[in-house]
Amino acid sequence: MDSRGSSFAAHFFGLLAIILLLVWLLHFRGGIDLDSENTYKVFNVHPFLMFFGFIFLAGEAMMAYKTVSAQRNVRKFIHGLMHLISMVMGIIGIYAVFKFHDQNDIPDMYSLHSWLGMGTFCLFGLQWLVGLLSFGFPRASTTTRTRLLPWHVFGGRTLLYMAIITAETGLMEKATFMQLRHGNESRLMNFTGLFILLFGISVDLSLAFRVF
Amino acid sequence: MDSRGSSFAAHFFGLLAIILLLVWLLHFRGGIDLDSENTYKVFNVHPFLMFFGFIFLAGEAMMAYKTVSAQRNVRKFIHGLMHLISMVMGIIGIYAVFKFHDQNDIPDMYSLHSWLGMGTFCLFGLQWLVGLLSFGFPRASTTTRTRLLPWHVFGGRTLLYMAIITAETGLMEKATFMQLRHGNESRLMNFTGLFILLFGISVDLSLAFRVF
Repeated sequence: MDSRGSSFAAHFFGLLAIILLLVWLLHFRGGIDLDSENTYKVFNVHPFLMFFGFIFLAGEAMMAYKTVSAQRNVRKFIHGLMHLISMVMGIIGIYAVFKFHDQNDIPDMYSLHSWLGMGTFCLFGLQWLVGLLSFGFPRASTTTRTRLLPWHVFGGRTLLYMAIITAETGLMEKATFMQLRHGNESRLMNFTGLFILLFGISVDLSLAFRVF
Repeated sequence: MDSRGSSFAAHFFGLLAIILLLVWLLHFRGGIDLDSENTYKVFNVHPFLMFFGFIFLAGEAMMAYKTVSAQRNVRKFIHGLMHLISMVMGIIGIYAVFKFHDQNDIPDMYSLHSWLGMGTFCLFGLQWLVGLLSFGFPRASTTTRTRLLPWHVFGGRTLLYMAIITAETGLMEKATFMQLRHGNESRLMNFTGLFILLFGISVDLSLAFRVF
């Protein structure tokens, strides 16, 4: 399979995961609304934006050098811009869950999911900033950029898997909290988790055989 | 950091995770015993063997080409043998949780953790078998081996991350089920999860800049 095949697989599994996530949140969980008085609708903004807004967009941004037909500089700009947009979406998604906690007097930052998520998000911001300063503006010397590139790629891939890990722990936390066992909602959530994993692996694959 | 640095980091984080796991299971969770009438001691075999027996040993096996001072054939044999041992440990670990479910009339295979774990374990077995037949006995032709090697490495790394994802969802499931919030046991489990993640990333790093 060439990289076009695997980036196609990434779009496919990513879209499948978004569809299942929407079916879950709209059909089983009552909807998505950041300004609702129904605090569960506020919570639902979190999983939706963290996958669709943050992970999916960032994964697509990672593949932009492969999937966007344009000059290298344009691709680079799109790569950085899409990551920036995904970060903004991620911030709104994180805000949503803090708001939900506030509304229900639930403590913040106690779970492994929250630790992994906050760690991933902060390192993601750092990676973006280092990327901007080194490869964008003000650009580093060619030697430095050549040296940095494999680390930028390794860092990006690691952050992708960290984000996937965080997503899976989030689904796991929610399903366990709701005491779901065998049933439609549980199966729907598990398939969502599987497609999120397959999205991550496909993004990884589409980049794996390129730089090294 | 060279690959010696990152394989040292992998040993270090792996051992830290094992120590914290033991403190958790022995001090907070009453001990580890596959034959106990206290079914929680039976359960505790599961997280211990899945990390120490399966993930840690398999990660060490992945690094054997770097860490073992011996001829290439000896290293290859150790690589395969350690993976085989880790698989046997994994089977006992999986048996333990099925036994615990049986003892407590808990249904099997409903959670995302169980789906991810079973998927990872079966694909791990397949990867081992394909590896044995292609690189061990009966060995494939040089052309085929050269073609297969990057896929073997990519598959191994993907399985490593899948195993880490499964471990994190397992910790998350258990902590949520026990309704832990801020507290010593919760923090201990979260740090265990972080060290397991850092073990995985260090193993990945020690191999990342080698083949490609």
